[in-house]
Amino acid sequence: MATTHLLTPPRLHHPSPSPSPSPAARLRATASLAHPLLPSRPRLSALHSHSPSPRHHRLRRTMSVRSSLIDPDGGALVELVAPPDRLPALRAEADALPRVRLAPVDLQWAHVLAEGWASPLRGFMREAEYLQSLHFNCIRLPDGGLVNMSLPIVLAIGDAEKERIGDKPDVALEGPDGGVVAILRRVEIYPHNKEERIARIWGTTAPGLPYVDEAIASAGNWLIGGDLEVLEPIKYNDGLDHYRLSPRQLRNEFDKRGADAVFAFQLRNPVHNGHALLMNDTRRRLLEMGYKNPILLLHPLGGFTKADDVPLPVRMEQHSKVLEDGVLDPETTIVSIFPSPMHYAGPTEVQWHAKARINAGANFYIVGRDPAGMGHPTEKRDLYNPDHGKKVLSMAPGLEKLNILPFKVAAYDTVAKKMAFFDPSRSQDFLFISGTKMRTFAKNGENPPDGFMCPGGWKVLVDYYNSLQAEEVTPVPV
Amino acid sequence: MATTHLLTPPRLHHPSPSPSPSPAARLRATASLAHPLLPSRPRLSALHSHSPSPRHHRLRRTMSVRSSLIDPDGGALVELVAPPDRLPALRAEADALPRVRLAPVDLQWAHVLAEGWASPLRGFMREAEYLQSLHFNCIRLPDGGLVNMSLPIVLAIGDAEKERIGDKPDVALEGPDGGVVAILRRVEIYPHNKEERIARIWGTTAPGLPYVDEAIASAGNWLIGGDLEVLEPIKYNDGLDHYRLSPRQLRNEFDKRGADAVFAFQLRNPVHNGHALLMNDTRRRLLEMGYKNPILLLHPLGGFTKADDVPLPVRMEQHSKVLEDGVLDPETTIVSIFPSPMHYAGPTEVQWHAKARINAGANFYIVGRDPAGMGHPTEKRDLYNPDHGKKVLSMAPGLEKLNILPFKVAAYDTVAKKMAFFDPSRSQDFLFISGTKMRTFAKNGENPPDGFMCPGGWKVLVDYYNSLQAEEVTPVPV
Repeated sequence: MATTHLLTPPRLHHPSPSPSPSPAARLRATASLAHPLLPSRPRLSALHSHSPSPRHHRLRRTMSVRSSLIDPDGGALVELVAPPDRLPALRAEADALPRVRLAPVDLQWAHVLAEGWASPLRGFMREAEYLQSLHFNCIRLPDGGLVNMSLPIVLAIGDAEKERIGDKPDVALEGPDGGVVAILRRVEIYPHNKEERIARIWGTTAPGLPYVDEAIASAGNWLIGGDLEVLEPIKYNDGLDHYRLSPRQLRNEFDKRGADAVFAFQLRNPVHNGHALLMNDTRRRLLEMGYKNPILLLHPLGGFTKADDVPLPVRMEQHSKVLEDGVLDPETTIVSIFPSPMHYAGPTEVQWHAKARINAGANFYIVGRDPAGMGHPTEKRDLYNPDHGKKVLSMAPGLEKLNILPFKVAAYDTVAKKMAFFDPSRSQDFLFISGTKMRTFAKNGENPPDGFMCPGGWKVLVDYYNSLQAEEVTPVPV
Repeated sequence: MATTHLLTPPRLHHPSPSPSPSPAARLRATASLAHPLLPSRPRLSALHSHSPSPRHHRLRRTMSVRSSLIDPDGGALVELVAPPDRLPALRAEADALPRVRLAPVDLQWAHVLAEGWASPLRGFMREAEYLQSLHFNCIRLPDGGLVNMSLPIVLAIGDAEKERIGDKPDVALEGPDGGVVAILRRVEIYPHNKEERIARIWGTTAPGLPYVDEAIASAGNWLIGGDLEVLEPIKYNDGLDHYRLSPRQLRNEFDKRGADAVFAFQLRNPVHNGHALLMNDTRRRLLEMGYKNPILLLHPLGGFTKADDVPLPVRMEQHSKVLEDGVLDPETTIVSIFPSPMHYAGPTEVQWHAKARINAGANFYIVGRDPAGMGHPTEKRDLYNPDHGKKVLSMAPGLEKLNILPFKVAAYDTVAKKMAFFDPSRSQDFLFISGTKMRTFAKNGENPPDGFMCPGGWKVLVDYYNSLQAEEVTPVPV
């Protein structure tokens, strides 16, 4: 009896393969020997070359490699890092500009913008973009088309900063350490209606939303938008920068491997064998559809996460073990860090997660149960209906070109003693191991059932939780 | 310095006139002698005729008159009142179905749906439509296009009703008086996430939102969607039903008058001479653009309004005086009631107000300052930024074909002693008379400055507030 009207069939289907990669691309794929976790540095010499092809006329300083990958939103990847020869002039210019200090999360967004994850955005949102994002989860292009943009990417300032900027058109943005990171041009300052922003993004204004506590509650009452010019590529010097491939670097890597389909898996948790089963099964399905060389983008989120999530360095080490242990095939997998901060905004945020991966070349997106969801901060229930993420994603304006692959539920099969797709006809054989249960096992030094996670990956988690407990019992020197 | 990027120029411009009306339509216009407040009953004999033209094949029981008016959303006006000969069968069928009782606001929505104001909706929303409305303010058509739909039109039921319905596909809807109003077919029942609904529609969850208090707070925890079949046209028997023209009746009337442009003015307040100035000025501008016969749809909202708004019967009497006194030209004005309830949801709701008028044939929409706005229920400020309504409306997906006319600010010119467009170069000459101030004048029996409102219209308001005060001092019999 659950019929739908008006709605087009959800895009949860098997599309036809796109044109096969060129023989040259296939050749490159065969020749590629780079470790998937440490991809060879893409040929940056090509980055500033100008394509002679009229089709690529607008893609100056952006895509210059012929590719069968999905187009970035707006047609061209927007990259906002200035060419190195402009650096001295920009530094001199910035010295004379009013300054705005970026909080750590702001810097992560500047990074996201700089590399084109949010293409076609050219900077922190001005009000027209902010309002469209907030009300419609999409933004209109000059040609009338729509691109998805479900999270406002905005920069807040206080009264004093607004006063200092006055009617000056440009401001310098400095990083949390005080160094100039970027110039924001032709700025527009408009009110930061925090309550409305929170209500429309999260569908609640309950206290305790992690991103709100981190980045909104104490932020200024104004937003400042403009065109961003970033002085140099943003680095964190945390030993993980080599994992932070930009959309262009990922596209180059996919091309080098001759990918004719790219399927992205967003995660902020350790990879267990259920995830791996799903990813391997997806590759199998794509091959069945006729694709010759589907490449997996295993793409952990690297920006702000809430305190009880497993920290990024631990997750990266765990992912590395998963590939070392052969649970995922290094030849067809690229592990890279997605630099965005996490909103935990469920159906609203999952659109951002998918849209950003289009810009990195992914044409298939695996969506899970309750993506970007969490518990309600003040009530004993999930904040979102666990099915809404998948449904909203499949209907979102501006994501029509992306193929949505719904997550199949995997659980521990106590008969086969491995993770398997849940079979409702013998549901008593299956054990669901939640993230909370997994953390409890690791904290208590207990082992999960054999086959839940590869031993190397599991050890990383156990060591992490041990180190936490050690910290807790170590007396702080006075 | 306030530049925008990505955004197309807002549709606040002068479009080219659409093709002139046919000579036949012009003839009908000349021949029309109907009082604008009491339009002659449209030729209902045409309503169920079948057009032989293939272009109108899908418009069976809907548009059958050739017209140069703007197309309804989705291409055809969706009318959901059953033909009279089906009435006995429907009544018999309803007797055997589970019942759902409609609250007064639900009945208003059934009315809205029945007449096609919400075309292409065919009934209360199922979940796919609800989620699209909530997240995107628009709904995708089977052909991939988008129509605007910013307010969820949903029907809530409680646990007991859900239990009673079980897996039955159809339910009977009964009016507040118990009589069967409609059958809802192929129903889908899904959770009513009230907090999320409120947060996403209003951008706040503060207590005291009038529509929430009236229609959501105490409503059931489930929503039921389906295809609506209404037994008979919905009437209120309040002496105002003759004002409640359906979109089709309005379209017929516009055609009869040979309209080549229809401009809609939504209001829920008495008409003062500033409004009239704006409406007359809009007609002048449309004539300047080349339109030959622009018709004004003065379209007061007739559904639920908050307690301190002027009640509908008083407003209709006041509007009637405005036309009698010649402030608006009866020949080029149609006054009719828009049956929708009011959400007071600002930028979200103004889209609904505009979209519904497209379905009634309006291709121009006048948008005011802070449309559908109100004070924040718990803070001393406007709930919405007063400019957001206009901005959001001009960018809304699915409203591209509508011409948005921004409200020019009128105020009382103390030199000319009349309402005039505000001239900032001599701002000291202007007096702003807010709705609150106007009500205070009327309550205290004081007169506003000469020229603020026509005397007949003003008297209606004074009499209304006198009657309220009389009620307040009349002791209630014990």
